[in-house]
Amino acid sequence: MDDLTPLAAALGTLLKDRKETIAVAESSAGGLISAALLAVPGASAYFLGGGVIYTQAARRGLLRVPDEGVKGIRSSTEAYALLKARTIRELLGATWGLAETGASGPTGNRYGDAAGHACFAVAGPVERATTLETGHGDREKNMRAFAKRALELLETSLGKR
Amino acid sequence: MDDLTPLAAALGTLLKDRKETIAVAESSAGGLISAALLAVPGASAYFLGGGVIYTQAARRGLLRVPDEGVKGIRSSTEAYALLKARTIRELLGATWGLAETGASGPTGNRYGDAAGHACFAVAGPVERATTLETGHGDREKNMRAFAKRALELLETSLGKR
Repeated sequence: MDDLTPLAAALGTLLKDRKETIAVAESSAGGLISAALLAVPGASAYFLGGGVIYTQAARRGLLRVPDEGVKGIRSSTEAYALLKARTIRELLGATWGLAETGASGPTGNRYGDAAGHACFAVAGPVERATTLETGHGDREKNMRAFAKRALELLETSLGKR
Repeated sequence: MDDLTPLAAALGTLLKDRKETIAVAESSAGGLISAALLAVPGASAYFLGGGVIYTQAARRGLLRVPDEGVKGIRSSTEAYALLKARTIRELLGATWGLAETGASGPTGNRYGDAAGHACFAVAGPVERATTLETGHGDREKNMRAFAKRALELLETSLGKR
């Protein structure tokens, strides 16, 4: 939404032109990655769905990843983001899976990650991952920053094909 | 987010005081119902997760509802919203499931629903459903209006216990 709409619209045009689709698995971005993509008129042509995988219950219930599936993979890491991106892509049959895992604040999370830390991954024709540290604990600002970085990662990945 | 934060914060306080949890299944609200609830610091105490069930692929892949599970239930109806609310509640083991199904615009959807039409449901200790017609096709405004109505339905439902 808002300042993310031009980027989301550009991504939408690219996806539509290529007849590709996308699915999202986010956590601390809270739904804003999906919302940014869906705020674009015509997004139905390429957006399949998304999950806000905020807890282990959501990871099990929505992504169908059991506890043994994340053994040795810490939350809020690029490895976990990639696991989520691959899983949502497969579950929805999308060309691209886009994922985020992080801590929006105001305090860090139970895993020792500072507020403003988040990891992102894309799975699909190429795979990429990246990490962001905003350095602050403003929860809403971090949610928006996380959504922006996720879209930027998708933009880079689409350009890499 | 934004104008929804006070209502979401009040709901959060209620849920936390009661030690109850919530899970969300939205479609045309696009992630904004989850985002509004998650923008509140401390939401980890009661928010379990959410799904943006935007397509049949998402309904099958995330909610695990096969085609025969929606036979005779049209999209963008209170019956479908209730099905989604019950399903997400059960999948995540939440006290409350909150769901939306509708058409954000700018045009109506393939099912013949006008832009601005959406249905909402809560499943949990009580079940309730409601319908909204905004009467316009401004996509972003409808997404926000849908999120607001969903939170209002939850507020009413929490009061009805």
